[in-house]
Amino acid sequence: MKKPSSPKKNIYKYFIRIKTRWNDNDSYGHVNNAIYHEYMDTVVNNYLIEHQITNSDENSPIGFVVSNSCTYFQPVKYPDTLNIGLRIIKIGTSSVTYDVGIFKNNETEASARGSFVHVYVDKKMRKPICISDKMKHKLNNISTL
Amino acid sequence: MKKPSSPKKNIYKYFIRIKTRWNDNDSYGHVNNAIYHEYMDTVVNNYLIEHQITNSDENSPIGFVVSNSCTYFQPVKYPDTLNIGLRIIKIGTSSVTYDVGIFKNNETEASARGSFVHVYVDKKMRKPICISDKMKHKLNNISTL
Amino acid sequence: MKKPSSPKKNIYKYFIRIKTRWNDNDSYGHVNNAIYHEYMDTVVNNYLIEHQITNSDENSPIGFVVSNSCTYFQPVKYPDTLNIGLRIIKIGTSSVTYDVGIFKNNETEASARGSFVHVYVDKKMRKPICISDKMKHKLNNISTL
Amino acid sequence: MKKPSSPKKNIYKYFIRIKTRWNDNDSYGHVNNAIYHEYMDTVVNNYLIEHQITNSDENSPIGFVVSNSCTYFQPVKYPDTLNIGLRIIKIGTSSVTYDVGIFKNNETEASARGSFVHVYVDKKMRKPICISDKMKHKLNNISTL
Repeated sequence: MKKPSSPKKNIYKYFIRIKTRWNDNDSYGHVNNAIYHEYMDTVVNNYLIEHQITNSDENSPIGFVVSNSCTYFQPVKYPDTLNIGLRIIKIGTSSVTYDVGIFKNNETEASARGSFVHVYVDKKMRKPICISDKMKHKLNNISTL
Repeated sequence: MKKPSSPKKNIYKYFIRIKTRWNDNDSYGHVNNAIYHEYMDTVVNNYLIEHQITNSDENSPIGFVVSNSCTYFQPVKYPDTLNIGLRIIKIGTSSVTYDVGIFKNNETEASARGSFVHVYVDKKMRKPICISDKMKHKLNNISTL
Repeated sequence: MKKPSSPKKNIYKYFIRIKTRWNDNDSYGHVNNAIYHEYMDTVVNNYLIEHQITNSDENSPIGFVVSNSCTYFQPVKYPDTLNIGLRIIKIGTSSVTYDVGIFKNNETEASARGSFVHVYVDKKMRKPICISDKMKHKLNNISTL
Repeated sequence: MKKPSSPKKNIYKYFIRIKTRWNDNDSYGHVNNAIYHEYMDTVVNNYLIEHQITNSDENSPIGFVVSNSCTYFQPVKYPDTLNIGLRIIKIGTSSVTYDVGIFKNNETEASARGSFVHVYVDKKMRKPICISDKMKHKLNNISTL
């Protein structure tokens, strides 16, 4: 296994800022590995909501996580402010693969990098849907395909 | 039990902004009650760190929570931005009682109000210390005594 | 403020066991105060589900937390096994007040004690309902009224 | 990307039971993806503590997560009881790769499967250590190498 290298900030297309919380730190005084996955969920859902891809409409699809991963380069801790960068590296029939970079304070090299695959399902039956052209269009804004 | 009334924003002396996270919502689609206590922890510790009351110095005291409470007036949810207001309503020999107001987006009436009592202990032995005059001085900035 | 005393295990009527998780510990190496509120939520909901008070039926009520509090007597940490004791100390028109004791491993004196008030609402409109006689009957099993 | 298949319970060497908590569920009514990583942390640390690999001794190593991943086959939810299975698939100079299976209630096919890489560091300087023969011996119990 070759350790992936830390990505630069400028490859990402969409950002949110997250302030760490006191409770994000674990016994070792840095943010617990599981918490990074909360940050990833949040950046993806922020994008989906801002662009009206998922909304309160009964027919809007919802994203279920089918796999995720994270590589940790440098610890982050409370109190840090994080810039969470997002881009899309694959759009399938019903799934989207997101690449997430986690940047500490003003740093331009990621402290962690995650991958996150959503399959989109219909809200009621929770069966995979085909990603519509309209949705694809909105996703393309942050795609690097 | 008389339900406490929702406090106004202008009684608080110190604020931080917290963006809710996707995972803060529980099955009912709003922020879970336990999460509000994470917000309270965070506002208090932010104040303590910014004012160098707790720091990495071996002799700086640390705060242990001895009791807390929260009253919920209106749900908040992801995605909301919260203003968390803080003030001090009691300074004892080794303990401080904080009053916390949780304000949704631009609202001036609290969605929730918490109380939070820290007892300060020394880092090594974890025994209560007497709050020093220097520390008291720093706490007085946000005190309403 | 008089600190409440640590309750004995034998006053509680219903118990669940919870194993702490690695991530429950915060920087100070013990379970973070907010996490205790997760334990409280869990014991109450376990009771409600086991006794079919809340279920997947569209007409079953759901409980919204309107206030909670916790007093911490002794730290608990990962890895500990906790016995969480529950009893009801008040049943109102649409609300129930729970008393929760948190007991470490085999201890009979609580490490923490919480209070937790649920108001029951209907699933759809989320307006308070009147607690039915049937529901009251099920709650009386763990009531000390 | 070929989706990995769901592993059987009998390939794992060490198990703990975890009861889901009310708050593990997210808005979609099932356990949030980030929480599975808390379960993984917990099973690994339980093994390390039970076998005295990490302990309160100043010279015992601690494990930092350098990467993790999870594939989700079937949702789990509150209230479910999970069996978390653990085995080791690689022991390096200072790192260990764990394979974790998450099994719902009495099921023998995993609902999720995770991978988790720890690098062991010394407690004080937080620099990678060489895994000792004694530690390797203890890890071999659950290794499939």
